[in-house]
Amino acid sequence: MQKSELDINSWIDEYHNGVRYGLEGTVLFEEQSQYQHITIIESKRYGKGLLLDGCWMTAEKQEKHYHECLVHPALCSAEKINKILIIGGGDGGTARECLHHKGIKQIDMIEIDHRVVELSKQYLPTLGGEAWNDPRLNLKFRNGITWTQNSATNSYDVIIVDGSDPVGPAKGLFNRVFFENCKRILRRGGVFATQSESPEAFRNIHIESVKLIREVFGFADPLYGSVPMYPSGWWSWTFASVEKPRYLHPKASRTENIESQCEIWSPRWQKGAFDSIPISIERELQK
Amino acid sequence: MQKSELDINSWIDEYHNGVRYGLEGTVLFEEQSQYQHITIIESKRYGKGLLLDGCWMTAEKQEKHYHECLVHPALCSAEKINKILIIGGGDGGTARECLHHKGIKQIDMIEIDHRVVELSKQYLPTLGGEAWNDPRLNLKFRNGITWTQNSATNSYDVIIVDGSDPVGPAKGLFNRVFFENCKRILRRGGVFATQSESPEAFRNIHIESVKLIREVFGFADPLYGSVPMYPSGWWSWTFASVEKPRYLHPKASRTENIESQCEIWSPRWQKGAFDSIPISIERELQK
Repeated sequence: MQKSELDINSWIDEYHNGVRYGLEGTVLFEEQSQYQHITIIESKRYGKGLLLDGCWMTAEKQEKHYHECLVHPALCSAEKINKILIIGGGDGGTARECLHHKGIKQIDMIEIDHRVVELSKQYLPTLGGEAWNDPRLNLKFRNGITWTQNSATNSYDVIIVDGSDPVGPAKGLFNRVFFENCKRILRRGGVFATQSESPEAFRNIHIESVKLIREVFGFADPLYGSVPMYPSGWWSWTFASVEKPRYLHPKASRTENIESQCEIWSPRWQKGAFDSIPISIERELQK
Repeated sequence: MQKSELDINSWIDEYHNGVRYGLEGTVLFEEQSQYQHITIIESKRYGKGLLLDGCWMTAEKQEKHYHECLVHPALCSAEKINKILIIGGGDGGTARECLHHKGIKQIDMIEIDHRVVELSKQYLPTLGGEAWNDPRLNLKFRNGITWTQNSATNSYDVIIVDGSDPVGPAKGLFNRVFFENCKRILRRGGVFATQSESPEAFRNIHIESVKLIREVFGFADPLYGSVPMYPSGWWSWTFASVEKPRYLHPKASRTENIESQCEIWSPRWQKGAFDSIPISIERELQK
């Protein structure tokens, strides 16, 4: 369809560096919270969606592209999964995917902005689903960076950073001090996971983040996938561990139950997603 | 940036099923050819770009995402690469990538619309580059479907279908008769390659195409990658062969010289791109 056939007011776009990605729909709710501008929309293609500071975060019918890929490589490969830390993740999707793993005893979810959780519960209830009522979910509205500073050494089996781009409240989630604290509070045999931006739209941040995480933990690798609503649609998540790259080897005892519930993730997909590193990025990481 | 900060007239968008992808820039040239509406733009982010019937085809600084992934899995794995058929590919990028392979003796490039070639040469000269002047390139302005009907059995070592979406002039590139003719004119040890749409934005066409190609050739597998300007940004190419899935095994004698010239493709990337099939598509293909 050409633009002239449509009502231009019915498009909600994210603008990034000379490119825009828009969904046809209507804005249901907007507010400026203490931390960011929150927008909830109803889209024709992907159901209800969430933007923070004008950037697409998630939508009901596209969220699995992101949450499955962030969670399962870590949860399937850590030695134990008793105690999990999620930083961010206010829409609830990461907690929901985690709780598909039956071995979990406690999830500390540290979200800075209580309004993101309240609005996600109200407008996007399928994202968190039953996770919001699960007694294993310990939700606190705090600063995730401070939380990692104050947590005791060897506290968590898995740490998942589910933050937005490294501007605004998420800026401190992409630096050495933060990663060193995450390493310190990670238990032996644990796995660290973070979204690590687009290898295309945020190429430099992506490369520098992977290098830094590798330096701090000893082992770290990016995994590549698709989140259509994010800049360029091409996204990455980076997994790290100490001693050996255990995130490359999902445990068969955990994968079967998980694969059957997934749309994107499988052990085969995961292996491919780690291997499908573009050669120009591989060259940069070797420098 | 929010919409209000920008001049709305400076965006050129493709609209698809409630989603739009736009580049900031200006239209340099437009015409209605015998076959389609051709638009050439100058974009801020990706240099000059081409749209056909309002759909993004390529742009100077994004084209390798598409052309490397279509060409090298086929050209690196076919038993011989003496004689190649390209159907479509009017911007010249596919021919250019093919000609990085020194063993090629002849490329028949069958493009239906001479205006696409003329305008690509004029506005996007880096896409075809030296290929346009290479004596091995035998360019003919014909209907590719008719060409495959009329070609002799066992004519080509590699067949590459570089067409647009299956509407308009490219409609006949996604059906059984066409694939059967391609199989017939493919030499023993040959490899067939086609773009096979998005597993997200054109999910059903993608699945049905892979199934049909697999039925016709015996072996066929999709490979997944990213072309940010195409609907959803998540794209696929499908490779096929008779006897065995030879496209899975690039020959070391060919890959080294190629990898060094690539931004995306490498043997490792290729392996990952075949494996990174989303589990929901894998389930559909097994039905």
